[in-house]
Amino acid sequence: MKIGVCYYPEHWPESRWQQDAQHMKSMGLSMVRIGEFAWSKLEPESGNYQFDWLERSIDTLQNAGLDVILGTPTATPPAWLIRQHPEMLAVDEHGRVRDFGSRRHYCFSSEPYRKECKRIVEKLAERFGNHPAVVAWQTDNEFGCHSTTISYSNAALTAFQTWCSRHYNGIEALNHAWGNVFWSMEYSSFDQIGLPVGTVTESNPAHRLAYWKFSSEQVKTFNRLQVDILRTHSPNRDIVHNFMGNFVEFDHFDVADDLDVASWDNYPLGFLTRDGTNEADQETWLRTGHPDSSSFHHDLYRACGKGRMWLMEQQPGPVNWAPYNPAPLPGMVRLWGWEAIAHGAELVSYFRYRQAPSAQEQMHSALCLPNGEEDDAAREVKILAKEIQQLINTPHESSSADLAIVFDYTGDQAARIQQPDGQHYDPLVFIQTIYSVVRQLGMQVDFISSAAAASGKQLDQYKLVMLANNTLSDQALAAKLASIDALIVMFPRTGSKTNECAIPEPLPPGAFQSILDIKVTRVESLPANIAMQTNKQNTIINWRERVESSIVANETFDDGWGFHYQNNRVHYFNGCPNRDTLLTLLTQQLANAELDPINLGRGLRLTQRGDLVWAFNYGPGDAELSNHILERFGFQPSNGFLIGQEKLHIGDVAAWKSS
Amino acid sequence: MKIGVCYYPEHWPESRWQQDAQHMKSMGLSMVRIGEFAWSKLEPESGNYQFDWLERSIDTLQNAGLDVILGTPTATPPAWLIRQHPEMLAVDEHGRVRDFGSRRHYCFSSEPYRKECKRIVEKLAERFGNHPAVVAWQTDNEFGCHSTTISYSNAALTAFQTWCSRHYNGIEALNHAWGNVFWSMEYSSFDQIGLPVGTVTESNPAHRLAYWKFSSEQVKTFNRLQVDILRTHSPNRDIVHNFMGNFVEFDHFDVADDLDVASWDNYPLGFLTRDGTNEADQETWLRTGHPDSSSFHHDLYRACGKGRMWLMEQQPGPVNWAPYNPAPLPGMVRLWGWEAIAHGAELVSYFRYRQAPSAQEQMHSALCLPNGEEDDAAREVKILAKEIQQLINTPHESSSADLAIVFDYTGDQAARIQQPDGQHYDPLVFIQTIYSVVRQLGMQVDFISSAAAASGKQLDQYKLVMLANNTLSDQALAAKLASIDALIVMFPRTGSKTNECAIPEPLPPGAFQSILDIKVTRVESLPANIAMQTNKQNTIINWRERVESSIVANETFDDGWGFHYQNNRVHYFNGCPNRDTLLTLLTQQLANAELDPINLGRGLRLTQRGDLVWAFNYGPGDAELSNHILERFGFQPSNGFLIGQEKLHIGDVAAWKSS
Amino acid sequence: MKIGVCYYPEHWPESRWQQDAQHMKSMGLSMVRIGEFAWSKLEPESGNYQFDWLERSIDTLQNAGLDVILGTPTATPPAWLIRQHPEMLAVDEHGRVRDFGSRRHYCFSSEPYRKECKRIVEKLAERFGNHPAVVAWQTDNEFGCHSTTISYSNAALTAFQTWCSRHYNGIEALNHAWGNVFWSMEYSSFDQIGLPVGTVTESNPAHRLAYWKFSSEQVKTFNRLQVDILRTHSPNRDIVHNFMGNFVEFDHFDVADDLDVASWDNYPLGFLTRDGTNEADQETWLRTGHPDSSSFHHDLYRACGKGRMWLMEQQPGPVNWAPYNPAPLPGMVRLWGWEAIAHGAELVSYFRYRQAPSAQEQMHSALCLPNGEEDDAAREVKILAKEIQQLINTPHESSSADLAIVFDYTGDQAARIQQPDGQHYDPLVFIQTIYSVVRQLGMQVDFISSAAAASGKQLDQYKLVMLANNTLSDQALAAKLASIDALIVMFPRTGSKTNECAIPEPLPPGAFQSILDIKVTRVESLPANIAMQTNKQNTIINWRERVESSIVANETFDDGWGFHYQNNRVHYFNGCPNRDTLLTLLTQQLANAELDPINLGRGLRLTQRGDLVWAFNYGPGDAELSNHILERFGFQPSNGFLIGQEKLHIGDVAAWKSS
Repeated sequence: MKIGVCYYPEHWPESRWQQDAQHMKSMGLSMVRIGEFAWSKLEPESGNYQFDWLERSIDTLQNAGLDVILGTPTATPPAWLIRQHPEMLAVDEHGRVRDFGSRRHYCFSSEPYRKECKRIVEKLAERFGNHPAVVAWQTDNEFGCHSTTISYSNAALTAFQTWCSRHYNGIEALNHAWGNVFWSMEYSSFDQIGLPVGTVTESNPAHRLAYWKFSSEQVKTFNRLQVDILRTHSPNRDIVHNFMGNFVEFDHFDVADDLDVASWDNYPLGFLTRDGTNEADQETWLRTGHPDSSSFHHDLYRACGKGRMWLMEQQPGPVNWAPYNPAPLPGMVRLWGWEAIAHGAELVSYFRYRQAPSAQEQMHSALCLPNGEEDDAAREVKILAKEIQQLINTPHESSSADLAIVFDYTGDQAARIQQPDGQHYDPLVFIQTIYSVVRQLGMQVDFISSAAAASGKQLDQYKLVMLANNTLSDQALAAKLASIDALIVMFPRTGSKTNECAIPEPLPPGAFQSILDIKVTRVESLPANIAMQTNKQNTIINWRERVESSIVANETFDDGWGFHYQNNRVHYFNGCPNRDTLLTLLTQQLANAELDPINLGRGLRLTQRGDLVWAFNYGPGDAELSNHILERFGFQPSNGFLIGQEKLHIGDVAAWKSS
Repeated sequence: MKIGVCYYPEHWPESRWQQDAQHMKSMGLSMVRIGEFAWSKLEPESGNYQFDWLERSIDTLQNAGLDVILGTPTATPPAWLIRQHPEMLAVDEHGRVRDFGSRRHYCFSSEPYRKECKRIVEKLAERFGNHPAVVAWQTDNEFGCHSTTISYSNAALTAFQTWCSRHYNGIEALNHAWGNVFWSMEYSSFDQIGLPVGTVTESNPAHRLAYWKFSSEQVKTFNRLQVDILRTHSPNRDIVHNFMGNFVEFDHFDVADDLDVASWDNYPLGFLTRDGTNEADQETWLRTGHPDSSSFHHDLYRACGKGRMWLMEQQPGPVNWAPYNPAPLPGMVRLWGWEAIAHGAELVSYFRYRQAPSAQEQMHSALCLPNGEEDDAAREVKILAKEIQQLINTPHESSSADLAIVFDYTGDQAARIQQPDGQHYDPLVFIQTIYSVVRQLGMQVDFISSAAAASGKQLDQYKLVMLANNTLSDQALAAKLASIDALIVMFPRTGSKTNECAIPEPLPPGAFQSILDIKVTRVESLPANIAMQTNKQNTIINWRERVESSIVANETFDDGWGFHYQNNRVHYFNGCPNRDTLLTLLTQQLANAELDPINLGRGLRLTQRGDLVWAFNYGPGDAELSNHILERFGFQPSNGFLIGQEKLHIGDVAAWKSS
Repeated sequence: MKIGVCYYPEHWPESRWQQDAQHMKSMGLSMVRIGEFAWSKLEPESGNYQFDWLERSIDTLQNAGLDVILGTPTATPPAWLIRQHPEMLAVDEHGRVRDFGSRRHYCFSSEPYRKECKRIVEKLAERFGNHPAVVAWQTDNEFGCHSTTISYSNAALTAFQTWCSRHYNGIEALNHAWGNVFWSMEYSSFDQIGLPVGTVTESNPAHRLAYWKFSSEQVKTFNRLQVDILRTHSPNRDIVHNFMGNFVEFDHFDVADDLDVASWDNYPLGFLTRDGTNEADQETWLRTGHPDSSSFHHDLYRACGKGRMWLMEQQPGPVNWAPYNPAPLPGMVRLWGWEAIAHGAELVSYFRYRQAPSAQEQMHSALCLPNGEEDDAAREVKILAKEIQQLINTPHESSSADLAIVFDYTGDQAARIQQPDGQHYDPLVFIQTIYSVVRQLGMQVDFISSAAAASGKQLDQYKLVMLANNTLSDQALAAKLASIDALIVMFPRTGSKTNECAIPEPLPPGAFQSILDIKVTRVESLPANIAMQTNKQNTIINWRERVESSIVANETFDDGWGFHYQNNRVHYFNGCPNRDTLLTLLTQQLANAELDPINLGRGLRLTQRGDLVWAFNYGPGDAELSNHILERFGFQPSNGFLIGQEKLHIGDVAAWKSS
C-alpha cells in the first residue's frame, strides 16, 4: 500500500526539482508518475532526442527516495510530427479531422503513427528501461478519453476492411452474418464496406457492433505494441495503463490482459453527473461523490488486473472539466485514498503535485497551489500516509467477496446499439445501480469477465452470481452456470443478441434458456414518466419483457404479463426494477443465498479485505456503527478500532481487524 | 375491403415460402406486398439480373391464392451502384454526403440515378408486368423518409438553377420576385444562384419556398418516371406509393396525381411523440395511439387518392424506431384495421409477416415472431379478416362528410419558413388539432386540396368549409368561397403570403379580403407560457393578429385588440385558440352550420361510411354508446349491432347499419 | 437631440421617394440613414458604378429638409464579388464556409475583400463626401452580428500566424507565454500554429484569448481602413458605426477609438431572452423589455463614444428575429426614445421607415406598414418629436454620474474561456445585474474602460468605483485605484488571470492584492440548484472563492469559508451574490459612499442628465413618484413637470428640471 503523486518536472525550473522531491518524500509519498505528456520536450524536432533532463529528474526523485512510474508520451504527439503525418489524425462522426491543439490527437489505426510510437517508446525504453528508480511503465494515457476510441478516418476504413476480410470467410459470409440482404445492404467485395456513420438513417447494428469490436482491438494492439517493446528493454517492471471511470468504449479486460496491473483515474466529484445520478443525487453527493462510484471502479478494475489494481490519479480538490466543480468536503481526499486501499489498490497516486498556472488544467487543483504552497489535499495526504505506515499491514487478499457480477463490455455495447431501449436506459448505469444496491446491503463484490466466468473455476467460489449486461447469448457461460451451486440472478436482455447483434435462435434469453425454461416473445421500452407496478408493489421502468414459459411467474402485472421467473436457484427478472424495487428484490435474493444482507443506508459503506474491515461515511449525515453492523463485520470490542470510532461524521473512516 | 401483409421472401429460405403463403391465406389475407427493397438480390452486379427467384416467390403466393403488390426497389440502390455513381448520393444541410449503409441514399436530382431507376423498373415491368398475380405496383418506398426530400448536392444545385431559369423570365424577374434587392442579394445570372443553406443568417424566405417547390417537383417527376414505365408495360394494374404519417415535406396531392391510389404507412404508437402531443397526452395514449392520428391521415390520403386509399403498412406491435416503443393494448391491431376500412381504405396491409432477426428492424414486431410462430397481431388479424368476410359489405361510398378542410402543402411550408411563429406553433399540429376537435364533436371530415377546392364543384357539397393552412393569398380559392353556400371558417395566417413568400397587397388575408372586409395590420408571436384571454374567456396562444375592419369584433382582448370577425357566413379567427377554446368555438360554428355537434369525449370516435357506422374506443376508460349517440348515428335497435355492443372497453369496436 | 429613421430608397419606386421624404419631415424627423446594404444597386457588376440613383435619393431627402447618414455597403458584398473571390467567405467553427445568401458573408482577414471595400468606399466618399446633406457616415453595419467576428478561414489562419510572429519575440516566447509545454503543445515555428478550434478536447485558454484579441484587432483595422478613406474625402462629417446589444465579441472601446460617435441598435423586446433574464422576468417584461437593458447599453456606448452616443436603430414594433416577437405596449416606442435621450443620445433613429414586404425582414415592423400607411410607431414618434421640440432644451452634459463601473472586454472574454465557471455564470449578465441593481437604487452610472480608468484622471470624479469583469491582473489599474478617494467594490474573479489567460503570481486577485491583502487559494463553481448562505443570510450562487487573509471576513459560510473582505474603502466580495443579496450589499456600499440609495422598485427608473430628470415606468404596474423620490431628484413643486405627472402608467414618462 503506497501513496504516490503525478509530477511534471518539465513544467518547472530544474532548480526547483530537488525541493519538490524532498517535499513529496516528507509527505509520505513513495511513487511518482512522470513523463507521459513530455514528447515535445523529449524530442523537440524529429530525431533530436533530449533525454538528459528526464534522467536528471528521475535521478533527483531517486535521490529523495522515490520510485518512478515512467509514462510513454504517445497521447500527445508534438506539432512537428502532425505536420509530417497529417493523415494520422482521427476523424469524428461528422467527418471532421480532430486537430492538434490539445491531446489524444491520433487515430489508433494510423500505421505511420504506430511506427512513430514504436520509435519513441523504444528509445525511451532503451535509455531508462534499467534505471533502478524506474519501477513501472505507464503506456500512453487514458485510452479513449474524449471519445477517441472510434475514429472514422481513411486509415480506420482500410484497417476495418482488412479486419473484416480476416474475420469472415468471404464477403458472402459477412453479408449473411450481418443480415445485409435487408435493405439491399449486401456488398460484392470487402473494399465496398464503409463505416457505420453518416448513413441516411441508422446503420446496421451488426455493422456497428463489428466496428466497435474492431476499434476495441485497435486499442489492444496499439497498447500491445508498446508493451512488447517495454518487456524487451525493461524487464521486471510492472507495465500499467491508466483507465478511466464510467468508460466502456472498448473491452478493458482485453486490453488489460497484456498488462501487469490495471490502474485507473478516479475523480469522484468530476464523475458525479456521469454516474447515472439524478439532480437530487447530485445535490446530496455534491462534495463527496456518489458513495458507490469509486468502489464500483475499484472492484471492476481489480478484475481487469486479475487482482492487481492501482489508483493512478486521485482527485485532490476541485477540478476544471466537469459541468460544475465544487470543493470536496474536508476529509474526502483521505477517505478516497483509504477506500481504494480497502478495495485492493496497491498504490494510491494523487493528481497532481502542483497546480499548473497555465493551459487547459490551470483550474485543476493539486496537492500544492500554483505558487508551490501546500493546498488542503497535501494536508490530508500526509495524514493518510502516516496512518497507513503506523496502523495497517497490507492484507494478502485483494478481495473477500461471496458475490460475483459477470461483466461483459461487448454485451454492454450490444445493448447500447439497439434504439428501442428508450432514452433512459443505460446498461452501465443499470449495472452500477445493482452494484450500489448490494453495497448498501453490506456485500463485498467481485466482477468477472464473461470469458473468465465461462472458462475457469473462478465462479465456483461464489454464493451468488448476477448477470446484468450479458446481452450476448453465450453458450459457454450458460453451460458454466449450469454446473455451479451458486444462486443465479439474471436481468432483462440477458442472452438477447447473437455475437452479430441479431436476435438469437432459440429466442432470448437464447443460450440461457438451457438453465431456465423461459422464452421472451415481446419486449417494450417505456418513456421516463411511465412505471409498471406488479401485484407485489414492485416497480418496473424503462424496459419490460413478456415471457412465455411453463413456469408460473412469481408476480404479475395488471395486464397479465408475468414478472420474475424462477427455477430453483435460477432467477430471471424480466423488467428493469427501479432502485427501490431492486433493494427489495436483492434483499430477498441475498437472503436466499445466505449472504446475510444488512441495510447500511444511503451513504455508509463497509469494505472487507482479508482480515481488515473499513467503514466509510459518505453522508448525507452522521452515521453510527451499530452493534449489529459491528458484529456482522467481525468487530472485537476488546481489540477496538485501528482508525476512527463508532460515530462517523461525513468523510470519516473507521477500520478494525475482523475476527 | 382486403387484408394484406408485407413480405420479404428474400429474407427466408425458399423452402419456407410455401408454408408462409399458406399460413397467410389461412389467416384470411389476400394481398402481399413484396420486392421493394430487393435490388441487391435482383441485380447482384451491374446488368446481372436475377429475377427467377422473384418469379418463383410470386408463383408460390399465387398458388396459395394471394395477389401481389410488387414494389420497385429504387429506395435501396445496392453498394456496387453507389460505387459507380458516388455523386448520386444526397447531401445534408451541413454539407455532408448521406452515405450508403441504410436506405434512401440517393438524391432525387441525380440524372445518372434516374437512368438506373428507369433501367431496373423497365426490366421488372417487362418481366412481371403481365403476371396475373401482380395486381398492383408500389413505386419506391416512403418518399422523403429520413428527411430525404431536400438534398443540397451539386446535382440538386444545377437542377435548381435550371428550374429557376424555366420559372422566371430572366434573372431580373427572379430578383424582383424574391425581393433580392434586400441585403444586395441580387444575382446577375442564373448560375450565381446558390442553395438556401449554410448562409450566415437565415436565407431569403422566397429562396427557401422556391427550393421547397423545386424539391417537391423533383419527387413528382422521379415518381412519374416510374409510373410511365409501369403504365406502358403493366396495363390495368393499380399504381400506388406508400406515403407516411405527419409528413408534409413535399406536395402529396401533386405526387399522387400520377397514381391510381394513395396508400400510406400507419404506426399509431410510433407516431405518438410526433403527433403534436404533450407529455400528458403521450401517457394517456401510450398503448393506443392518439385517437385522431390514424383517421386524420386516412381522410387526408383519401383526398390525395381522389377517393381511393390503401393502408400499405399497419403497425402490428411494438416497433423499433420511436423514442420508446411500448406494446399496444390487446385489440388495437384489430381496431386500427377496422378504422382504416371505416375511413375508406380498400386494403389494410400489415407490416410485416415475420419479424426479421437481423439488421435495423430486428426489434420491429410482426404478425409472426422471428422463429416463425404467430405473435399477437396474427391472432387479431385473423379475427378482423373473419369479421370482414362474415359481417360487412363494402359500402360504395368512401366518405359521408358534410365538413371539408382545405389542405395546402405549400401553405403549410410557407407558414413554417417564417420564424416569428414562435417556437411552439406548427401548422400541421394546428390543423390536426382542428381535425381532432371536430372528430370529438362527431363530424365526418373530407380534406380537399386548395387547387381542387378552387377549381371544381367539390366544395359545393359541404355545409362547413375550414381554412387553416391556406397561408397563400389565393384569388381563385377566394372567388370559389364567395360562390358557395357553406359556412366558412378561417384561421390566423390565412392569405398572409404571396406565392413568393412575401406579404401580399392588399394586406393579409390578401385575396380573402374579398370575402371578409378585414385587414391584418400587426401580428405577434408569443412564448409558450403566455396565453391571451378574451372577454368571453377564450384563450389564444402562440400567435395573435391585430385586425382593422369596419366590422365590430365578436370578442375583445384586455388590450383592446378584437377577436373573431364575422360577416354573415364568413368567420375569421385572428389568433390561435388552445384546444379548449377550439372546442367552444367550433361547437358554435358546427351548430351554426346545422351539423348537429355531439361531444363524444376524449377517445370515443364515430365514423360513418355509406350506410355503415363504426364506433371506436381509444379510451382512456370504458365508453358507453348512449341512446343520444346511437340515435344521432342512425342506430336501429331492431337491427342491433353488426359488431360489438353499447359498452366498449378500450380497444373495442362496434358497428351497425345506419337507417 | 434629433429624431431619425432608417430608409431604403432602393426598395421602393423612385416615384414614391418625395412623398416619403415629406412624410418623414412632417413627422418631425431630421436625419435619415441610407445606403448601407445597397452594393448590388451601386455596382451591379464589377466596376459598373451606378451612383446616380443614390444622389437623386439624397437630393430628395435634402429637398425635404432632411440630413443624411450614408452607410458604406460592405456588410453585403454582391454575388458577383463572391464569385470573383470565393475565398473571402468566413468559415465557421465546424469548418464550413459561411455562404452568400444573407449578409455579413465575409472574413475580416480576407485581403482581397479589404481591397474591394477600399475601392467601393473610396468611390462613394469621392462622390458623396462633400454633399451638403451627407452629415455623417456609418461604416459597414453591426460588426460581428451573427457571430461573424471570429472566422476560421485560411485567410484568418495566415493572418493569425503573422499576428503571433509580431506579438511574440520568437516561437519560444510564444510557447512560454501560452504554457505550451503542457500536453506537448509546443510549436517549432509560427507556421505550425493552428486555430483554437476542432481540437480533440478544449484548446489552450491562452491560444483562445490570443485568437480573440487577434480577431478583435481585425475588426478594428477593417473599420479603420474605411475611416481613413472617409476622413480624407469627406471632412467634417461624423463617422460612426452601429454596434449591437448584449454583444462583447470584440473590444468596442478599441474599435470606437477611431470613430467620432458610438451608435448602437436597440431592440428591447428582441433582446429580452438574451438579457440574462429568466422565464418569470421574460413574462413580466414581455411588452416593455427589461427596464435596465436599454440604459445599460446607452451608458456603455456613451463611454465607447467618449461622451458621444447615437441610437442608430430603435425597435418600432414586433420584430422578426427573436424566439418570439410580441407587440410592445402602447407608449413604449416613445419611452425608449426619451430614455435614449436622457442617457445622452444625440440622435434617436428608428428602424425602419416602412416595412419591407419581402425577404428576411418582412415580418419586422416599421413606422409604416408595407402598404405605406402609418403604423403605431409613426404615431408615437410624432408625439416624441413634438415634445422634444416644445419642451426640452438639450443639456450640455451627457451624464451626471457619481458611480463608475470599470468595463473590460478582454476581461469578459478571459472569464468566458475558462470552463469551471459552471454553466450558469455569464460575466456580461453578472455586470448587467449589478448595473440593474444600482439603477433600481436610483444611481446614475458611467462606464469606463479599464485602459481609460488606469491612465487618466477620469476615475477621480467618482464616489464609488466597481470592478466586475476586470478578470485580468492589471498593475496600472490597481495603482490608479490606490491613488483615488472613491470607495472601491470588487467582485469575484477580479485579477484572476494574466494577459495570457494564466493564473497570476501573486495569486488572484493578482495585482489587486496591492490594494487589499487577500489571496484566493481555492475556487469552486456550483450547479444551478445550489446556493450557499452566509451567517448574515446573504446568498451566493454559481461561484465561490476561498480567501486567505490577515483580514477577518465580514461574514462567514457554514463551512467556515469567509465572505466579504474589506480594508477601509476597499471591498472584495468573494462569491457571486444573487440579485436579492446584491441589492442588500450594494445598498450598504452606496450608503457607505454617501450616494443616498433609494429603492425605486422593479420597473421605475430615474435618469438625470444635466439639470433634467426623467422618470420611466416599465411596470409591471402603475408607479407613483413619491415626495421622497421627487425631492431626491430635485423636483420643484413650483416648476411642475415638463412632461407627465406623479402617477405613471406602464410606458409613461415624466420629466422635470432639477433644482
